[in-house]
Amino acid sequence: MRELIEKIVEEGEVLSEHVLKVDRFLNHQVDPVLMKRIGETFAKTFQNESVTKVLTLESSGISPALMTAYALRVPLLIARKRKSLTLQNDLYTAKVYSFTKQEEIEISVSRSLLHEDDHVVIIDDFLANGQAALGLTEIVKQANAKVAGIGIVIEKAFQDGGTLLRNRGFRVVSLARIASLQGGKVQFAEEVVCP
Amino acid sequence: MRELIEKIVEEGEVLSEHVLKVDRFLNHQVDPVLMKRIGETFAKTFQNESVTKVLTLESSGISPALMTAYALRVPLLIARKRKSLTLQNDLYTAKVYSFTKQEEIEISVSRSLLHEDDHVVIIDDFLANGQAALGLTEIVKQANAKVAGIGIVIEKAFQDGGTLLRNRGFRVVSLARIASLQGGKVQFAEEVVCP
Repeated sequence: MRELIEKIVEEGEVLSEHVLKVDRFLNHQVDPVLMKRIGETFAKTFQNESVTKVLTLESSGISPALMTAYALRVPLLIARKRKSLTLQNDLYTAKVYSFTKQEEIEISVSRSLLHEDDHVVIIDDFLANGQAALGLTEIVKQANAKVAGIGIVIEKAFQDGGTLLRNRGFRVVSLARIASLQGGKVQFAEEVVCP
Repeated sequence: MRELIEKIVEEGEVLSEHVLKVDRFLNHQVDPVLMKRIGETFAKTFQNESVTKVLTLESSGISPALMTAYALRVPLLIARKRKSLTLQNDLYTAKVYSFTKQEEIEISVSRSLLHEDDHVVIIDDFLANGQAALGLTEIVKQANAKVAGIGIVIEKAFQDGGTLLRNRGFRVVSLARIASLQGGKVQFAEEVVCP
């Protein structure tokens, strides 16, 4: 997605070979017009999947996911993060290991909000190791619902999350794929095909 | 705001005299079309305030705040919550006591994203004790910026947050004001005047 790639080039900051800071338009400060365009792009990408719900993980996935849900005119479901593992029968839960924070968290969704007839698009801001997206697919599976696709704003293609998810048969669409952050520069992977 | 009040009546659940669960359209599952309308209503409310930024606190304030920022065509700034108090010179921080969780958290915003010429609208999903909104006003004050107003989706008018903020001179606009949750029923305060 051209606008996004331009924004990354203009406003992204490469902090290390693994860390791209996009605090100025995606995570901390959010550009709502860009989010709207991102939402419309994901909606177009998954328009033939009879999507009934968009699912994301709090909190940095919420902005692109809300705009996707708006464009598709379906509800947004926000999985919650918790540290404590209190067994609750009314929740679907999955464990997600964060390499950044080096801790395991539990993510959850109320059973009353996800059903077996749901076709779910999963949206997240970043894809690196794929653990968060994988946890979200597990929650959809627990509900016997269908993963209609996974939409990622920025994929770090030099990490293995994309391969992990695609090898499991999920359709993963990333709007910007980063091949490398070496030498303090953002190198993009192959031209991203937008619908 | 009529649509919001109808939604609260239809889908809200009164869990106790103090707790209204709105998991089906505001917090956990989000109705994006309603959020768009909420954003447009806040934008209209604060249209003469030369707003330059919308500020909220992760994560349940993000949905209404993003739609407000979109309607006003200004950036959204999401204050972060942290438990640990590590002094960082590049952040504005404030302490917020959560009565629900009975813990003090620190909220923060990058100094590079808030400036003295900013006119800031603060948006949050709930107003109860007012501690979160007050913390956000402190952050705006630290930046020598101006609080243009505070927009709240649901105000629990039987708690003291609204009075606390209004007594300090802030313009607080709540789209639904709840007078009481006694007897398992939602009683609304005076008719909410929408712009």
